[in-house]
Amino acid sequence: MTQHEQPGLEISAAEDPGISSGARVAALVDGVFAIVMTLLVLGIDPPRVPRDELDETLVREVVRLWPRIAAFAVSFIVLGIYWMGHHTQFRYLRHVDLGLLWVNILFLMGVCLVPFTTHLVGHYGSEGIGLWLYGGNFILISLLLLAHWRYAAWRGLLREAADGDLVPLATRQILVGPALYLAAIAVSFVDPRLSLLVILAVPILHVLPGPFHLHWTR
Amino acid sequence: MTQHEQPGLEISAAEDPGISSGARVAALVDGVFAIVMTLLVLGIDPPRVPRDELDETLVREVVRLWPRIAAFAVSFIVLGIYWMGHHTQFRYLRHVDLGLLWVNILFLMGVCLVPFTTHLVGHYGSEGIGLWLYGGNFILISLLLLAHWRYAAWRGLLREAADGDLVPLATRQILVGPALYLAAIAVSFVDPRLSLLVILAVPILHVLPGPFHLHWTR
Amino acid sequence: MTQHEQPGLEISAAEDPGISSGARVAALVDGVFAIVMTLLVLGIDPPRVPRDELDETLVREVVRLWPRIAAFAVSFIVLGIYWMGHHTQFRYLRHVDLGLLWVNILFLMGVCLVPFTTHLVGHYGSEGIGLWLYGGNFILISLLLLAHWRYAAWRGLLREAADGDLVPLATRQILVGPALYLAAIAVSFVDPRLSLLVILAVPILHVLPGPFHLHWTR
Amino acid sequence: MTQHEQPGLEISAAEDPGISSGARVAALVDGVFAIVMTLLVLGIDPPRVPRDELDETLVREVVRLWPRIAAFAVSFIVLGIYWMGHHTQFRYLRHVDLGLLWVNILFLMGVCLVPFTTHLVGHYGSEGIGLWLYGGNFILISLLLLAHWRYAAWRGLLREAADGDLVPLATRQILVGPALYLAAIAVSFVDPRLSLLVILAVPILHVLPGPFHLHWTR
Repeated sequence: MTQHEQPGLEISAAEDPGISSGARVAALVDGVFAIVMTLLVLGIDPPRVPRDELDETLVREVVRLWPRIAAFAVSFIVLGIYWMGHHTQFRYLRHVDLGLLWVNILFLMGVCLVPFTTHLVGHYGSEGIGLWLYGGNFILISLLLLAHWRYAAWRGLLREAADGDLVPLATRQILVGPALYLAAIAVSFVDPRLSLLVILAVPILHVLPGPFHLHWTR
Repeated sequence: MTQHEQPGLEISAAEDPGISSGARVAALVDGVFAIVMTLLVLGIDPPRVPRDELDETLVREVVRLWPRIAAFAVSFIVLGIYWMGHHTQFRYLRHVDLGLLWVNILFLMGVCLVPFTTHLVGHYGSEGIGLWLYGGNFILISLLLLAHWRYAAWRGLLREAADGDLVPLATRQILVGPALYLAAIAVSFVDPRLSLLVILAVPILHVLPGPFHLHWTR
Repeated sequence: MTQHEQPGLEISAAEDPGISSGARVAALVDGVFAIVMTLLVLGIDPPRVPRDELDETLVREVVRLWPRIAAFAVSFIVLGIYWMGHHTQFRYLRHVDLGLLWVNILFLMGVCLVPFTTHLVGHYGSEGIGLWLYGGNFILISLLLLAHWRYAAWRGLLREAADGDLVPLATRQILVGPALYLAAIAVSFVDPRLSLLVILAVPILHVLPGPFHLHWTR
Repeated sequence: MTQHEQPGLEISAAEDPGISSGARVAALVDGVFAIVMTLLVLGIDPPRVPRDELDETLVREVVRLWPRIAAFAVSFIVLGIYWMGHHTQFRYLRHVDLGLLWVNILFLMGVCLVPFTTHLVGHYGSEGIGLWLYGGNFILISLLLLAHWRYAAWRGLLREAADGDLVPLATRQILVGPALYLAAIAVSFVDPRLSLLVILAVPILHVLPGPFHLHWTR
């Protein structure tokens, strides 16, 4: 590291741990999550109220935004859950291979669709199609997170600490999410509002200790 | 590190310090702050002026934007203060546990709302509801930053250097922010413009040395 | 590292591997890719449907969005391919010099144009100009990725592992991308829909093993 | 590092070099630059053309966008220059103190305004006010980059390698930028188009070797 003594731009890049495959995938994942979480706020379009009607209508317009603010908050927290799920899996990884990179990119594609489906639910909440796409979006993300885990186990990319019964245990935990979203979609044919409640239950159930954790922690 | 000699994608990920829990939370936090700070500029919608009226109206339209530019600047600097507050706390952390991850995610949710509430203040500044939501947004962020600190102290996640009277001292410092924003909201019932002045005072008081620092530095 | 014992803000920056030239270029590249991939979703503008027509029109409106969703998915995956291409090259780098920094910045400029050209293809897919600009965008990105590789080889910035026949091999592989996009543009004069198929073929051919990989991996 | 053997979330954060002050400031700076560079593309609003007029008008509409595309490209490259300037300075830093953090945040505030002023120049290019704000934006950024350098020198935050005549040399180099932008603003009173040429000259002069480099490299 004598090179560091003489500053300049001729710095070793490839030997730098900061740009190993694992770190760069983590950087891309963290970046995408940070942006998607932040873009969600754009779904709460601020009201446009003419200057001379401010007194009467601004409060009413802001109150009318509550379904969008609720959709923002729920999606934000559920994204937080999935970010932690990815994070937990990553901590068990020993290697990252080309196939796992592709699973990560498809996983991120699912994550990037969340602002779109959240917008649909926030604006047309009790309508079927918005709910189906929203639920379907998180089912897709869950299945890709599961693929991430099973692929890593199948290809021997996990560390020894992940041996034993952790692989099937984690598989069951990850499947709780899609099951709940599937239930929400099924319930929407009976009563869309009940369906919204099931969706709201996902983050709440996750925080409670027990079998509803969408990923596992030891 | 013999693996580094033979380039390829089979690189150790989990042993890489660049993707430890602490570093990934920091990456998510830095990412969200960077994006939120940048999104604020979208609140200054550039004027749309017809080609043939450019001479007369463009200057006037740009001048008319000053409350939005002021709101942009104030929110930017206050976000900078909170980023530094989080940063300072993080430097005292020894461990990151699951609960602290959740406090971070809720803290980021508060931060992500800032472009929305800044938009309200920039467009409808002297109206009550915008001010209340703006002030309420930063009260929420402050309380979550406080929760971050107290939780870490309670769970023994802080390093030895944070022992002694640092925990109560920092608690008092962090509470200066919400107190000022609460004052701004209270004053808005008397005169909304005075309220804007109190909000403006937050970054100014913070930069001066003394008890108004929103976080502490040694 | 005794300084780490006493927390404070006076921390060594320049000796920190996390901010070497290589790591910071990688951070900028990963950041831009993360944002561009996420911005693509803004191209799928959610439908605006009046409250009282929700039942009939919302499903139809969402279905009508499929070309934009397809454009989103294709661009996302192709960006993933180019991110991996850049990533693979970076792993062979020993040094980063000023010229290579500039090639990176121009490469990122090409990447940042993708949401714009994807929007054109998603909205006016079968029209010539959108296709040409979309294809031209990826030709530009490919040529800059090639420039990145050749420049690094020419200036001796590659590691020993990249000697032998890797440089010409990689050159040929990178040229597959522009060739396919050029073909898509040529075909568009015969039948624009056929052209869309060629563009769709790019990610599919890339995933299959064989000479169509847009970059190389060992 | 025995803790790394047993995966879990209880990972040391504060001892991790990845989250030192220097690295986190660099992460915030890289993040903001990545986002601002990417947001620039939103200034090239894609044309909205009715389906039945596609043949005649789409090409014309796209061609009509060239001033916005030019503004995008110029701002992108100039931001690249300033990113490299900040990067070069950072490599000479030994410590980061609280004051330098504030200079960084104000510097980023200037950078975040670039999409707004670029939009004005791209849409109302030959009008005075857009040009003045655009030039003024980069003068502000330059002066903050200069403040960053002088503050670091004044407070003894630079490494030994930056001693001697590097501090005054770098000061002169950084002042080339504001001087050129000031000239562009002055020239705009004679002929706004000539002014655009001066602005265009900034990146071109920078790339050529000689005294017009906006920062220095050895």
